Amino acid sequence: MIVVLKKEANQAKQDQLIDWLKGMGLGIHISKGEYQTVLGLIGDTSKVDMDLIGSLDIVDSVKRVTDTFKCVNRQFHPDDTVVSVGDVKIGGGNFAMIAGPCSVESEAQIVEVAKAVKAAGANLLRGGAFKPRTSPYDFQGLKAEGLELLRIARKETGLPIVTEIMSVSDLPLFEDVDILQVGARNMQNFDLLKELGQFGKPVLLKRGLANTLKELLMSAEYIMASGNEQVILCERGIRTYSDYMRNTLDLSAVPMLHELSHLPVIVDPSHATGIARMVPPMALSAAACGADGLIIEVHNDPIHALCDGAQSLKPEEYAKLVKKVEAVRAAIQ
Amino acid sequence: MIVVLKKEANQAKQDQLIDWLKGMGLGIHISKGEYQTVLGLIGDTSKVDMDLIGSLDIVDSVKRVTDTFKCVNRQFHPDDTVVSVGDVKIGGGNFAMIAGPCSVESEAQIVEVAKAVKAAGANLLRGGAFKPRTSPYDFQGLKAEGLELLRIARKETGLPIVTEIMSVSDLPLFEDVDILQVGARNMQNFDLLKELGQFGKPVLLKRGLANTLKELLMSAEYIMASGNEQVILCERGIRTYSDYMRNTLDLSAVPMLHELSHLPVIVDPSHATGIARMVPPMALSAAACGADGLIIEVHNDPIHALCDGAQSLKPEEYAKLVKKVEAVRAAIQ
Amino acid sequence: MIVVLKKEANQAKQDQLIDWLKGMGLGIHISKGEYQTVLGLIGDTSKVDMDLIGSLDIVDSVKRVTDTFKCVNRQFHPDDTVVSVGDVKIGGGNFAMIAGPCSVESEAQIVEVAKAVKAAGANLLRGGAFKPRTSPYDFQGLKAEGLELLRIARKETGLPIVTEIMSVSDLPLFEDVDILQVGARNMQNFDLLKELGQFGKPVLLKRGLANTLKELLMSAEYIMASGNEQVILCERGIRTYSDYMRNTLDLSAVPMLHELSHLPVIVDPSHATGIARMVPPMALSAAACGADGLIIEVHNDPIHALCDGAQSLKPEEYAKLVKKVEAVRAAIQ
Amino acid sequence: MIVVLKKEANQAKQDQLIDWLKGMGLGIHISKGEYQTVLGLIGDTSKVDMDLIGSLDIVDSVKRVTDTFKCVNRQFHPDDTVVSVGDVKIGGGNFAMIAGPCSVESEAQIVEVAKAVKAAGANLLRGGAFKPRTSPYDFQGLKAEGLELLRIARKETGLPIVTEIMSVSDLPLFEDVDILQVGARNMQNFDLLKELGQFGKPVLLKRGLANTLKELLMSAEYIMASGNEQVILCERGIRTYSDYMRNTLDLSAVPMLHELSHLPVIVDPSHATGIARMVPPMALSAAACGADGLIIEVHNDPIHALCDGAQSLKPEEYAKLVKKVEAVRAAIQ
Repeated sequence: MIVVLKKEANQAKQDQLIDWLKGMGLGIHISKGEYQTVLGLIGDTSKVDMDLIGSLDIVDSVKRVTDTFKCVNRQFHPDDTVVSVGDVKIGGGNFAMIAGPCSVESEAQIVEVAKAVKAAGANLLRGGAFKPRTSPYDFQGLKAEGLELLRIARKETGLPIVTEIMSVSDLPLFEDVDILQVGARNMQNFDLLKELGQFGKPVLLKRGLANTLKELLMSAEYIMASGNEQVILCERGIRTYSDYMRNTLDLSAVPMLHELSHLPVIVDPSHATGIARMVPPMALSAAACGADGLIIEVHNDPIHALCDGAQSLKPEEYAKLVKKVEAVRAAIQ
Repeated sequence: MIVVLKKEANQAKQDQLIDWLKGMGLGIHISKGEYQTVLGLIGDTSKVDMDLIGSLDIVDSVKRVTDTFKCVNRQFHPDDTVVSVGDVKIGGGNFAMIAGPCSVESEAQIVEVAKAVKAAGANLLRGGAFKPRTSPYDFQGLKAEGLELLRIARKETGLPIVTEIMSVSDLPLFEDVDILQVGARNMQNFDLLKELGQFGKPVLLKRGLANTLKELLMSAEYIMASGNEQVILCERGIRTYSDYMRNTLDLSAVPMLHELSHLPVIVDPSHATGIARMVPPMALSAAACGADGLIIEVHNDPIHALCDGAQSLKPEEYAKLVKKVEAVRAAIQ
Repeated sequence: MIVVLKKEANQAKQDQLIDWLKGMGLGIHISKGEYQTVLGLIGDTSKVDMDLIGSLDIVDSVKRVTDTFKCVNRQFHPDDTVVSVGDVKIGGGNFAMIAGPCSVESEAQIVEVAKAVKAAGANLLRGGAFKPRTSPYDFQGLKAEGLELLRIARKETGLPIVTEIMSVSDLPLFEDVDILQVGARNMQNFDLLKELGQFGKPVLLKRGLANTLKELLMSAEYIMASGNEQVILCERGIRTYSDYMRNTLDLSAVPMLHELSHLPVIVDPSHATGIARMVPPMALSAAACGADGLIIEVHNDPIHALCDGAQSLKPEEYAKLVKKVEAVRAAIQ
Repeated sequence: MIVVLKKEANQAKQDQLIDWLKGMGLGIHISKGEYQTVLGLIGDTSKVDMDLIGSLDIVDSVKRVTDTFKCVNRQFHPDDTVVSVGDVKIGGGNFAMIAGPCSVESEAQIVEVAKAVKAAGANLLRGGAFKPRTSPYDFQGLKAEGLELLRIARKETGLPIVTEIMSVSDLPLFEDVDILQVGARNMQNFDLLKELGQFGKPVLLKRGLANTLKELLMSAEYIMASGNEQVILCERGIRTYSDYMRNTLDLSAVPMLHELSHLPVIVDPSHATGIARMVPPMALSAAACGADGLIIEVHNDPIHALCDGAQSLKPEEYAKLVKKVEAVRAAIQ
């Protein structure tokens, strides 16, 4: 950590600050410049409150020079993490094609969509049983029954299932779910993250609505620090002042997260754009910049979907997209 | 709800859409303009999926003309809601001065700060026992012990206590907390909101990091729809590209929320700015635009605060501010 | 245009509004719903002030149902516009590879880079002679001399030149520049846009720092309405709260602009990310979602670049990228 | 400037970088920490390209420790700048009440509004003659004729006039305008800023749509570095994802700009909110946090205003507001 003191910083106060920092067990390297004095703090600064030091009247600014994330950091774990679910692998060159309806609605629906996406090339099935909705009056999902229907669809197709967990109290219901998804609104529900760290199942962690990459990595760190190394990061669009799109898909997050972390990074073009016809171009872009997978909404009958139909592809559209994604992945090798 | 059809919309498809809408029990008013046909949907459109309709290829755009929030809506409840905690009232002309440390650290600390802020003019005590922190390695609060220390401080001073709840599973510990705070990161933790709706205690609901006013009101709607009418809204700064401030305090939210809703609206200038010396001017601005209260961090010894010291006022600074806030409130009558 | 009146709207005021609108030559279609009355305005509403109507106390909301952009609108011009510069075509299936240094620094530099990017596969040369810089103390470009050096590089390589114009008063110097670039900061410098409309040379119009797609299209409309149909749109990243990247590249703008407009759309991954190693993945993503070209910074000697060296590729890196871009373009056919 | 090297930085490359920096005339202070090596650059670093150094593969990050703004910096000019226009002073305790219509429409209109706002307590008259409009089809202002009408209104009332300049080529028309306003869209039109630096008249510089405080100060620096010290900064709302307001008024900019710079800071609540009934609360908030003035739209007949009527106050509303602003200013002394 580096502390830049103000030009006019009072010497007595400087000494007081230095003594206080030394009292925390840190070594201090003092560097006097023409305009400013800079303190280099040596040792374990992870407990030092940057904001507090920054608030002192003799301090101009403070900068942390080591990352605060450890488990997720590629610096300490150079190889790609590969998340495994049965025979399916994600990361390290393995690509996840996760597809399915926004919400599980009925056995017929989920089984039909599961078969269709499998035939189209998907290797994992998604479907919401617990649905976070902005309004209390919107459909909240079939809950336990929805999970049961997903299990049936898995049995019928062999596709492992990915579904969202919203609350610690629902965890017992998720015992045999293959990948637990944490939605954007819960990215900083730290109690949930810690429990998922102990639960042991792979976690698909979506970036929050307006969270930075560092915050996303710190949330993954909560899961990993609690003992679970099977974490998949997911970019799903961030909130901006965009006028035609629901969110702004931040694809540069993909190569940057790959540089910062060893965890697999997938992309959700359906929620990012909210418009079915924008899903294929954005899915291809995600493949082109090295994403490790795509999570895409597919519905057999969009007009009757209970929610988010606007962003769902039809199975035949999805099948075409899968082929193009493969072509793009081959092109960038 | 209004549905604008595209100029070139195929008549057969138009008829199909109209039949489908009628099948949902809606009346349809058709208005043919020079360039476009507009459908007016009459009846209960709260279950109609705007996004789905907007996604149809014959549809140009869709617009909801009635608000989706009911309980929080001033249209259906013209009088200001007044939240009561013992003798303290908030809203409807009653001003809350909530003050205290970021975190409860020890009995001596919380009791001393409680006495100091009471002497300075505060009428409610705040202090964090459960702390949401971006990093798993940061101080997470004294938890149950912290709540116990808050109760001691309440006993010593008579000030009702306000403290953050992070998880449904902690609710039993909050039985005799006076106001339960929902932090920005949990504004859309819908399971928590529903439980608080049944818990019955007043709730201080903070606006999320990048949430709109409508989303804030919909989260309050979750609490009210579950049976709890004692909700206080709190503006605490939103995330932007601001370069010198932690967040951007959106004070125009205060008069706009007052127009849209009957709930009291308070402001947190400490978290919004993250800088102690910016707290007084922003607190005065909040009072000037009609806020119903202020929640401000005050610490007896900022240099040793375990977190957020940078944004805490000293008791004597807070005392001066209270007087100015009163003067500003008098000036705008 | 649709005007939604409030439920409680006074009848006399309604009549007054309707008379006023009729006085503007509009037909009014009145649709009374259960909760609200909706006025459909028929005729030329382009002169009607939406904000004014929206501010009336009897009005709930106003919605424009026809786009305000005409010349740029694909609805009135279904075929792709193809911009031509000598033998080079951009749009309608023709891909522009624009490359070169951030700033023109010397004859040796620009000629060397021009030869290198040509050899690598570029078909247009970029280079800044007039540089908009946030600080008045930063290098402002070689100006007229820089333009002269670009002409020399064009002569040596045959590559048409693209360079930024910052001020109407510099226009005479740009007589034989092939494509005039309008930078992000000048996207709404309307006087400049109008002059470029009359100047007649192709214009590369960059999206402003925080402008919406509609605003970008309206700025293109300024150029086209003044008589110039040779406009290229450019997405170059927008300002958000991104923590690792200079800007957030909004690639969904590419397919959406293609849907809204017939103009070619290119992407600038260099300015969007500000980091050379992020340029290749973002360039490939741009190609994958259908961009009509790429404008990329290439420098022969990054360590000595006078500005923006951090985001420049070396010629050999650029050559590799060109091949991959071609492979991705082939993959999405 | 501080350069943090990566842990694994190759020694040969480190030496090469250090030699290169020394070659620029800088002193280098090397500080080896447990995890990283930090270089402190001593001397005039204003020409050093931070981004370039940050892009080197051995460099972790770079931080500038001295501000790049000089003329506008309060550090080098502790006293408040007072801008004078005839008898009216702005800054240093002097408060500007600037009011008038969005656009000048006719002699009768501007003279009537000028008299009304003067009677209500305004000390400066605003009115647009050159109007920047997003659409080329919207009213663009009366231009030279509008300036002439402003002069007539000034003669009738004695109020100095404030009006927007959009282009260097219009400057000759502004010879006897009292304060030249630079609009948000032109905040980084650097050629215009330089010309205004030489023109010598006071400049009211509005913050751009999505510009940081540092960028605003750097634009003011352009004007001051060209010789003009009479600059007024203006906060007018920034672009966010706000759902009910046109922009988000960032009032914390007021105390922060006062800390960073000696220039007066005024606020425009009319453009920030776009809604007349939100103007009074935001104006009072601006006064409460120490703004040096307010620029507010007032119209004698909002229903017929050619633009922005939605955000204009009536003269009687403005008169009431002026009294409350005075009361708030008294309250915060």
